[in-house]
Amino acid sequence: MSLLHILDLLSTFTFALVGARVAADKALDYGGIAFVAAIASVSGGTLRNVFLGLRPIWIIDPWIISSIIAAVILTLVFRRVTHIGRSLLIMDTFGLAVATMSGVQLAREMNTTWFAAILLGVITAVTGGLLRDVLCQVEPVLLHRETIGTSSLVGAATFVALLQLNVAGNLSAILGGAVVVATRTISIHFDLHLPRFNSQR
Amino acid sequence: MSLLHILDLLSTFTFALVGARVAADKALDYGGIAFVAAIASVSGGTLRNVFLGLRPIWIIDPWIISSIIAAVILTLVFRRVTHIGRSLLIMDTFGLAVATMSGVQLAREMNTTWFAAILLGVITAVTGGLLRDVLCQVEPVLLHRETIGTSSLVGAATFVALLQLNVAGNLSAILGGAVVVATRTISIHFDLHLPRFNSQR
Amino acid sequence: MSLLHILDLLSTFTFALVGARVAADKALDYGGIAFVAAIASVSGGTLRNVFLGLRPIWIIDPWIISSIIAAVILTLVFRRVTHIGRSLLIMDTFGLAVATMSGVQLAREMNTTWFAAILLGVITAVTGGLLRDVLCQVEPVLLHRETIGTSSLVGAATFVALLQLNVAGNLSAILGGAVVVATRTISIHFDLHLPRFNSQR
Repeated sequence: MSLLHILDLLSTFTFALVGARVAADKALDYGGIAFVAAIASVSGGTLRNVFLGLRPIWIIDPWIISSIIAAVILTLVFRRVTHIGRSLLIMDTFGLAVATMSGVQLAREMNTTWFAAILLGVITAVTGGLLRDVLCQVEPVLLHRETIGTSSLVGAATFVALLQLNVAGNLSAILGGAVVVATRTISIHFDLHLPRFNSQR
Repeated sequence: MSLLHILDLLSTFTFALVGARVAADKALDYGGIAFVAAIASVSGGTLRNVFLGLRPIWIIDPWIISSIIAAVILTLVFRRVTHIGRSLLIMDTFGLAVATMSGVQLAREMNTTWFAAILLGVITAVTGGLLRDVLCQVEPVLLHRETIGTSSLVGAATFVALLQLNVAGNLSAILGGAVVVATRTISIHFDLHLPRFNSQR
Repeated sequence: MSLLHILDLLSTFTFALVGARVAADKALDYGGIAFVAAIASVSGGTLRNVFLGLRPIWIIDPWIISSIIAAVILTLVFRRVTHIGRSLLIMDTFGLAVATMSGVQLAREMNTTWFAAILLGVITAVTGGLLRDVLCQVEPVLLHRETIGTSSLVGAATFVALLQLNVAGNLSAILGGAVVVATRTISIHFDLHLPRFNSQR
């Protein structure tokens, strides 16, 4: 199994878990939950592949779909778990780190420029959560309060910079992912965020 | 004319009719109606083609656009028809069946795996209606109450299963489409739907 | 630099400026502003390229990203400029004209049919503004009141018609763009718009 494949499976499973729970909390039916879980978990990687001229990975690999189905079933079975807020946030942060690395990794394998690799890392990581929130009519956290985009961007830049410095691929991915997790965790813990724009209106 | 082409034209026309009517009921102007009709009718097939590495069919075939224009003109001409709810639902169900079959059919022609064929059938069928509802700021029926996704999924699985059993392609498509229509009609008639998720919140 | 490249850079910069200002007026943070500016400015051209089987231009060309970053910085620096409504509208109209021409131009270079060229021109021009409004939860101007889609369509058709009449490419693009600007300006000035659909409900 390649690094990319492992990263894709991990991020798909965690994003599907988070997506299924968000959909369940909005009282969607089982079909809606499965749909939101699928969109939340594969749309980022799908965009990444389409932009690079490849078929989406769920067309090729049955394990992607299996991991979404597993996540949905888990969500429906463990429905009585109520105090899940903190675990969800941890999973979402983990998925964000892994998806960022998978985007950079594929861009690198496809020989894009470094700035395209950073952008593709961010797109892979943030698209699913954004669509999840739009579909569930939750205010998109990407656009407010949170530091999802910033964390992903800093981590992707770290991964790319380490590769430029000839650090080994797997180690660079791990360090880049750690930067994503650290940036998001620190920013949430200290309530750091980018400033808002205050116009004189 | 190939099976795929006939299916695409039929689903485009019916989805455009439904989309134009939904947009008209939200009091959009003529341009908005044409826009929603176009999105509702071609976005599913466009996604299907892009995922399979092909150009969207409306780039290649002028009949797709012509059928959308015809649907919009029909909607504007027959504006006094008020009791259209039931006919719309029948058309939407028919379009759903045809689009599901077109997605499976193209996936099959492009030699995807069976699970990808099922997924592409569902994506082809449900995308347009979902975007239509988001654009018109109607609550997406896909996520609530209705059984659009389930009907499409069951029909796509039927088509794929029949093909695996070496039933002829055209017959398999007709039977698969009939399953879509039957599943949706029965579920609406008996008010069946997938259960909702009741958490203990 | 090719005609297409110049058109893409111009439309990206102006759409990024407009997008950043709309996001700033909705009090998004700096990250949200950059994100909306990026989506508003590149999504039309990205769809255009994906539909034609090409990689998005921002994967290949670092100047696209640079022009978005410049637009965001300009917006943040000149935050005290309050009476910007009229300038924004002028910029948005200019971006619309340029993006329409870029869509037609690329379609022409890729040897599509004339109706596909017109459609790709409109898609390139209107997608960014539509997504910008959806993300910022502003009512999409494309669907109401304004004549963005109509102006783009008329200009794209003009460009295509002039090319069919063997007018030189650059001249055709300038005239087509002028038609977009004229159509939108006249329609706003005289408050012209397409009629709404009045059903008997």
